[in-house]
Amino acid sequence: MYLPGPSIYRICMIYNLLDDLITEEKQLISSSEIGNMLGINAASIRKDISFLGEFDNTGARYDIKKLHNHISKKLKLNIERRACIVGIGRLGSAILHYDLFNKYGYQIVAGFDSNVNKIETLKTSIALYPAYKIPEIIKEAKIELAVLCVPGSAAQISADRLIQGGIKGIVNFTPGIIKNKEVFINNIDMVKEFQVLSAMISTTSPQ
Amino acid sequence: MYLPGPSIYRICMIYNLLDDLITEEKQLISSSEIGNMLGINAASIRKDISFLGEFDNTGARYDIKKLHNHISKKLKLNIERRACIVGIGRLGSAILHYDLFNKYGYQIVAGFDSNVNKIETLKTSIALYPAYKIPEIIKEAKIELAVLCVPGSAAQISADRLIQGGIKGIVNFTPGIIKNKEVFINNIDMVKEFQVLSAMISTTSPQ
Repeated sequence: MYLPGPSIYRICMIYNLLDDLITEEKQLISSSEIGNMLGINAASIRKDISFLGEFDNTGARYDIKKLHNHISKKLKLNIERRACIVGIGRLGSAILHYDLFNKYGYQIVAGFDSNVNKIETLKTSIALYPAYKIPEIIKEAKIELAVLCVPGSAAQISADRLIQGGIKGIVNFTPGIIKNKEVFINNIDMVKEFQVLSAMISTTSPQ
Repeated sequence: MYLPGPSIYRICMIYNLLDDLITEEKQLISSSEIGNMLGINAASIRKDISFLGEFDNTGARYDIKKLHNHISKKLKLNIERRACIVGIGRLGSAILHYDLFNKYGYQIVAGFDSNVNKIETLKTSIALYPAYKIPEIIKEAKIELAVLCVPGSAAQISADRLIQGGIKGIVNFTPGIIKNKEVFINNIDMVKEFQVLSAMISTTSPQ
C-alpha cells in the first residue's frame, strides 16, 4: 500500500478526531462532518480513506469505532514504538516530559546531550546518555523514533549518529536541513511557523 | 495575490534555504538544486515561485539574493511582528526563550498563564500576565501572533480570548482542535508527528 505524505497527515488528523469522538460517545459521522471539523474538503476525506483499501461501511455515514480501528490497523498505529530525545535544552526537556506520548503507545526511553555535566545534574526518570553513545543505545534499546532539539549547527551530525544506530524516523525541531535518504524526517521549525502565518496574513484571508 | 497553503509552506522553506546559502556566499541556484536540498520536485519549486509574480531572472539559475528579496517583499516577511505565548508550562517556557525569533523579526512581548502564582515566581525578561488579560494586552501591545501551549482542554477558550483581542495567527501546540474562521491556525501536535512517522514506516520506504 502506497500513501502520499499529505494523505498520511490527513488520515492521522482524522484518526485523532475519531479518538476524541469515541470519548464523546458519538457513533456515526459523515465525510462532510469530518471535513468541517478539520477544515478539509469532504472529497479529500473520502479519497484519503479509500487509499486504505476496502472499508465495510453500512449506510451514508462512517461508523466511528470501526473507522478508527480500520485506520489503526492499516497504518499500524497500534504498534508501540520507542523514542528518544536528542538535545536536552529547554525544548528537549519539555518534550522529554510531554505526557501524552504514553497514552498513544510511544515510549520515550532515552535522552542524549553532548554536555556530560548536564546529563549528570538533570533530574529525570528517563535515562540520559552522552551524545556519542547515540548509535549504541538506539540499537540496544530498539529505538525507532527520535526528536531532534539540538542547535541547527549540530543537526546533521546528530542525525547521522541516529541513522548509524538504525533510527527509522526523526522529528527535526532544529532550523537545520538534514540530508539523507534513509529515514523519514518531519521538520518543525518555530520560525517557519511564524513566517507561514505572516505570509498568510499578508496574502490571503482566512476561509 | 492568492497562494495555496502548501505553496506558502514550500516558499517559506525555499526562503530559509536561500537565507542559509547567502551566509555561505553562494550566488546562483537552479530549481533542481533547490528541489534536491528540500526534497521537493523542481517543477513544484518553479510553480511556487511563479505564484509570486514576475521575477527578473537572467539565465537558467536563480540569483539567490534577488530571489530572497523577491520572496521577502511578496510575502511581506520583512515586516516585524509581535508575538505572545499562552500557557507557560515546560513547552511554553521553552518557546518563550527560543532565541531565533528575534533574528527573523518576531518579537515575543508577552506570556500568559492562568496560574497567577506561576506568573509571579517565574524569572524571565518577558512580561507575564494572567490569562484573563489576554484580550486587553493583545490589543494594547499590538500582538499579531500567538503560540498556544495550554492543555488541550483549554485550547478553545484560550483561542477565543486571543481572537477577541484581535490576534491574526495562532500556532497551536495543543492536541485540541480550535474551531474558528477568523484567524489562521497552524497545528503542531507532537503525538501526530510520531503517528505520521509511524504510518510512513509501516506503509512506505524513504525515497
